[in-house]
Order: sequence, then structure tokens, then C-alpha cells
Amino acid sequence: MYIHILVRAPPIRVCREGKVTQRLLVDCRAATMVEGTSPYGLVEDAAIALEGERIAWAGARADLPARFADWPGETLEGRVVTPGLVDCHTHLVHGGDRAKEFEMRLEGASYEEIARAGGGIVSTVSATRAASEDDLVAQSLPRLDALIAEGVTTVEIKSGYGLSIDDEIKMLRAAKRLGDARDFRLKTTYLAAHAVPAEYRDRPHEYLDEVVLPGMDRGRNEGLIDAVDGFCEGIAFSPAEIAHVFDRAVMLGLPVKLHAEQLSNLGGAKLAASYGALSADHLEYLDRGDIEAMAGAGTVAVLLPGAFYTLRETQLPPVEALREAGVPIAVATDSNPGSSPMTSLLLAMNMAATLFHMTPEEALAGVTRNGAKALGLSDEIGTIEAGKRADLAIWNIREPAELSYRIGFNPLYRRYFGGTA
Amino acid sequence: MYIHILVRAPPIRVCREGKVTQRLLVDCRAATMVEGTSPYGLVEDAAIALEGERIAWAGARADLPARFADWPGETLEGRVVTPGLVDCHTHLVHGGDRAKEFEMRLEGASYEEIARAGGGIVSTVSATRAASEDDLVAQSLPRLDALIAEGVTTVEIKSGYGLSIDDEIKMLRAAKRLGDARDFRLKTTYLAAHAVPAEYRDRPHEYLDEVVLPGMDRGRNEGLIDAVDGFCEGIAFSPAEIAHVFDRAVMLGLPVKLHAEQLSNLGGAKLAASYGALSADHLEYLDRGDIEAMAGAGTVAVLLPGAFYTLRETQLPPVEALREAGVPIAVATDSNPGSSPMTSLLLAMNMAATLFHMTPEEALAGVTRNGAKALGLSDEIGTIEAGKRADLAIWNIREPAELSYRIGFNPLYRRYFGGTA
Ligand SMILES: [Zn+2]
Ligand SMILES: [Zn+2]
Repeated sequence: MYIHILVRAPPIRVCREGKVTQRLLVDCRAATMVEGTSPYGLVEDAAIALEGERIAWAGARADLPARFADWPGETLEGRVVTPGLVDCHTHLVHGGDRAKEFEMRLEGASYEEIARAGGGIVSTVSATRAASEDDLVAQSLPRLDALIAEGVTTVEIKSGYGLSIDDEIKMLRAAKRLGDARDFRLKTTYLAAHAVPAEYRDRPHEYLDEVVLPGMDRGRNEGLIDAVDGFCEGIAFSPAEIAHVFDRAVMLGLPVKLHAEQLSNLGGAKLAASYGALSADHLEYLDRGDIEAMAGAGTVAVLLPGAFYTLRETQLPPVEALREAGVPIAVATDSNPGSSPMTSLLLAMNMAATLFHMTPEEALAGVTRNGAKALGLSDEIGTIEAGKRADLAIWNIREPAELSYRIGFNPLYRRYFGGTA
Repeated sequence: MYIHILVRAPPIRVCREGKVTQRLLVDCRAATMVEGTSPYGLVEDAAIALEGERIAWAGARADLPARFADWPGETLEGRVVTPGLVDCHTHLVHGGDRAKEFEMRLEGASYEEIARAGGGIVSTVSATRAASEDDLVAQSLPRLDALIAEGVTTVEIKSGYGLSIDDEIKMLRAAKRLGDARDFRLKTTYLAAHAVPAEYRDRPHEYLDEVVLPGMDRGRNEGLIDAVDGFCEGIAFSPAEIAHVFDRAVMLGLPVKLHAEQLSNLGGAKLAASYGALSADHLEYLDRGDIEAMAGAGTVAVLLPGAFYTLRETQLPPVEALREAGVPIAVATDSNPGSSPMTSLLLAMNMAATLFHMTPEEALAGVTRNGAKALGLSDEIGTIEAGKRADLAIWNIREPAELSYRIGFNPLYRRYFGGTA
């Protein structure tokens, strides 16, 4: 079989004399995504000054302070610049795929037949356990590269298919290796509370106490965990069980987020909000009270249209009510082998518009400003503003709406990650 | 603004001594898509001998005749080989885009507001008329490149946004220019009967007699037309009007195809079948009698899930009935600026499976064997068989089902067009 070779271009962040690189981007339309200004925070005829890994200045070229005027310039020939895209919810690291199961289902196989053939999440757990850390890196890298090729500069990656301490740690280490192999901003999320593995069937509490909590301690000690997640659903964990997990996260000083209200309403989003969660994700079955709780806690609503589409879900997440309540809405791929084998964040934007009736501006905010917020990175990334990281995507388009409008087209011209193209 | 540069690599089809190139592909799984054999016509451990632009031999390596054994070999390291993909229904050549209209609609604008802002097909007609032939080539090339990058080797391109003789001819010439600019097999379709332009409002018959028919004569004389198409719908042309167009096509010896039964059932598919049409396309509102007529005439059903998806259609085309009746089903992007701004045939395959419940094997047949049939190219392309053109796609996958399973991921490893990589 074939292999994927890991090559990393050396980052060039200082110029030859040892000074920090300075660069001035001009002749562009900047969709800064700064809130409360024009649509998209759009600045016509913008200038963006990059210094090292940061944005030193951004605004209308006419307002450019003199001290930036002689920085080495780069014309963008009228292109649109956006913040680098943020995919704030992925299960990118996993072993195997579920193409055969996808095929069996379309050929009319029943749920039982698929289960008997080893399908479902169990098959991904088996494949992930069987895979070495190297295998996981090699299998996940093409998926990561697909995201990066579309201007993504920040990716969240969850564990959750290991379901043993060692295998969860292996997944997180593989994610960290991906972080070293490519230039992007990585956030790792510990999701051992994703499913109860077969060896703990009907003993979820023992699974939590023997695997999920000690695994969290270990991952925290090894610096592998940025946040803690769970799957609150009839087929997974109850709110009380999730609370048990979140309590440990709080003890360890780790922020939490939750898969909630995807297939039914168990009160997961409310629970998450009560823990000041960064985000509650999926949310098709969210109700009014949940929305108020999220608004009060500043919890981001992460919508995942790829899973909605793949599962042929008909219950729409309450976009209008979220919008009215002022809950920030993020959009992500949910890249995973079962319910969303998707590796295009641009396509998730199109689906957010077409399936969820979000506007193109909301879709772009969902993969920039609000995606950053869902990862606790609002101070660092998500908008084009002085002081933020110079993570940018430059596009061969005239209108920001084109990013949501096109289907299966990648108009990326260039990507800056931390000031480096 | 920026420009797209047209570069064409010189085709290298003969080796230095002037002999026809011979090459033997080995270590692969060949999804030959030959009918009536194994699923996907799959040959494990296959060998494919290429000679010049043709496939000289294809089959199990164990059966390889001795005369091919010493041809220069190329190992494919276990990869899957399929026929080069065929996108048999596109409106790839057009001026402008409709991103702003897409945005207005999602922001709640009414149909009237969009029409007042110059939206709808009228805006594409205006932009196409305003564009020069060079403009159309430059604007369409990135879309074509997106298809080609996914292993597409044959593309059908329709006119239909000019709606005057000169502008329809300009569109067809632009398509021919694309055919010269890149290595792919082009089929051009004359679709002046797409809509009645404003200057002929309420005078469709005059439009047909003064523009559509004489334009067809001219395009035919200039060698620009491979087939004739129309849009049979309440908002476009009646069956009687389409018959008037088809009669001229028959006179000129041109095969016909038809946009039919997309929004209602007007009997277009039956009409098309009565003319022995290559295909009837869309077909959401097709009924039993239509299916029998198509089966009898050998007319291919071309399904366009991108338009179904974008228009949030709920009426599914009758896939099961088509399957039972033995009507060949093709799948295409319908790439167009209004109802399907899609440039990924792999994504159309995924949508055919997810939205239309087609199997991955049917989806792949839809973009190979049956796509070829919808273009009258069954003798030349669409399967991997001795004598056919060496149009191949080689994929970084293990199972052909992966092509439909993944969403927004391009696993293409290499593409052969007429024997040239
Ligand atoms: Zn998830
Ligand atoms: Zn069409």
C-alpha cells in the first residue's frame, strides 16, 4: 500500500538580519469579522500590517499610520482577506473508515446486520485501538491537509474512540504529532465520555471512575488536554454522568464543552451552561430554556450541518431563536467516520446556509470569530485586528458570500499562519 | 483584479523513437464498471495495458497475455483504478455568479426584491451577454480545473445563457476553447431553449423561430454542437415547443436530451423518449409511464442532486422504479450559477447516495458507464475494457465505496486522459 510522507517546511519568521518580519498587505477587501461594524466587518481598500506572528495594524489604507507605510508591501490585487478559518469541532484522529457500513446501509442492510458485521462506533473503536500512534498520524494527516488547503488555521481534535486510558492518550498524542507536522493552531479535547465500551456494558459509572476520570488526570499531567467534552444522549451518558465528568474537569481547571440535544432533549445544554461551558454542540432539539441558559453563560452554539445531512435529520436546530437571544453560533465539520465523514469547512458553511438557513455572514462568523470563541481563543484569533495572531486566508473571490455560495469549490489563494505564508 | 493564466502541457503520447507509448499498470484493484460481472466490475490484482490513447488489455494480472508482460510497468501500490469520471450535465460556461442573490435570499429578501435587484436567470443572461469569449473562458476555467482535479476526464457543457444567436455561439466557442486549454473530452450541448429572454416575453414561438432554430443551424455548421437540449417546464417551454426544437435537431442529425419533470410533470421525459433522446435530466416528478417510455427508448435518467439540495426540494426522483425498470441512471453536477453552484462530481456522488438513496456502486456507475451513455460515448469511454480510451482515475482508497462515502475530500492520486498522465 501507499504511505503519506510527513514534510514540514521550516517556518521563516525572522528575516536574515534577525529582525522580526514586517509585511504590509494592500489592495484587498478585508472581511475583518469584527462585530458591530459593517457586514462582515468589511473594510474596502484595506491595509493589513503583519509583524512577526501578529497583526500590527488593520484598517482602511487611507488611515494607515506613517510608520507602516514603508514596510515591504504585497499587493493582493483586489482579493478578499478573512481571518484564517477555525474548525472548532472535529474527530479528525481515528482509525479506519466506515465506507463499507455506509455501503451496506444504502444496499438495504438492517441495523442488526450492520452491527453483526462489526459496524457502528464499535468498529471505529476497534480500528483506533488496533492502530499505532504512527498509524493514527498517517491516516489522519490527509484529512488535516484537506482542511488546511481550504484556509483553515485552527483545528480542534477530540479523543473518544480509544475508550481506554492508553488508547485515549494515544489519540491525543497523535493529535499533538499532527500539530507538529503541519503549521496550524491545535486544540485538543478529551472525549473519553463519548460512549461506554463493550467491556463496561451496563456499568457506565465504573467506566467513568476507572477510565474517564483517571485518563483525564493523566492527559492533564502530560499536557495533552485543552478542554473536556462528553456525549449527553440516551445512547451515551446521562446529565448526571456528564456532571460527574465535568466536576473533575473543573477540579483540574479545564474548560468543558458538550455534545448535547442532537437526537433528543436531555437537558445537556443547560447542564453545560451551568458549568460555564465554552460550547454546546449539535443542538437540533434545543428548547427556549436551554437557549436562555446558554445566552446567560456565554456558551457558544456549535452547529454541525454535516452530521444533520448525513443522518438525514429533519429536526432543524433553532437558528432564529439562537440569533434573537444573541447566542454566538459557530459552524464546524464534525469530521468523523460515522455521521460526518466531511473534511471541507467551506462545505459546512454552504450546508449551514442551505440546510440551516444561516446567512453567509453568519456562516463565516461561525468559522472565524465564533469558532474561536468556542475554543476559548477570542483574544488570539477569529478576527482581523491589531494584536491578534496573523492567521489569514486570502481568497480568489470578490464577495465574502461566495465562500458559502459555492459547493465543492476551493477559491483559496494564500494562507497566512502566524504571519507566515 | 487577478487573472487566470491558461497553460497547456504538451501531450506526450509517443516516445522518443516515434513509437506509440506502451505502459502496463499493475498492483491495483480495477473497478472496471463493466456490467453484469462482480460489484463495480471489480478485478483484484489487476493489470491494465495502455497503448497510445487506448486500453490494449485489462483484467486479472494472472491472465495477462505474454505479449504485454514486458511493457514498461508502473506499480499502483494497491490503489483502486476507475474509469475517468464523466460529468454529463453542466452549465459550466457562464458569466458572473449569483452569490449576492444567494445571500439576499438567506437574509430574507422576497422573490420580488431579488427580481428587482436583477436576480434570477436574467442576471446570468446579462452577465453572459456582457462577457467576451475570453472572459467566459477565464471565468469558467477554475470551475473546469476543479472537476479535472477530481479525476473527471469528460465534461458536457451547455449553452443557454446567451439566448441570442451570437451569444449562444459565443458560449459554445468558449466551451471549445476550454476543450483546447485542458486535456479532457468535451461534449457541447446547444440549450438556447433554456428560457425566453426578456425581449421575446410572451412570444416564445417567435423566439424559437428567430433565435433557437437559426442558432442551431449556425452552430451545427460551425461544428459547435454535439447535442440539443431544452428546458420543459411551466416557467420555460411546453412539450409542443420542445418538439418544435427537437424536430430541427432531428433534421440536422443531432441527438437530443431534455431538462424534464424537475418542478412538475409536463410529459417532457415521454416526449424526449419518443425522440430517442440520449437522456432526460432532473426527473423528480417522473411517473411510471414516463419510466416505461424511457426504458423502451434506452434514454438515460440523469439525476442532479446538487440542484435538489440547493433548491431544498423534497420530491425525490423515483430511483427505485428506475432501477427496477432497468433505466440507466447517471449522476452529474448540473454545475450552474443558480440552482447548483457545484464543481465537485465526488460530492454529487455523495449526495446521490445520501439524498437519493443510490448505492455507492450506482453512484459510481452514474459518473462513469451511465454518464458516458448519456453523452452517446458508450463505445469510447465509461468502463475499463480493451479498445476503450485510456481515460482512468487512480485513487488513494481501498474500497470504491469511499468515493461516495467521503464528503469534501479528494483522494485522487493520478488521472490518465487518453493514455497520458
Ligand atoms: Zn462530535
Ligand atoms: Zn441543467
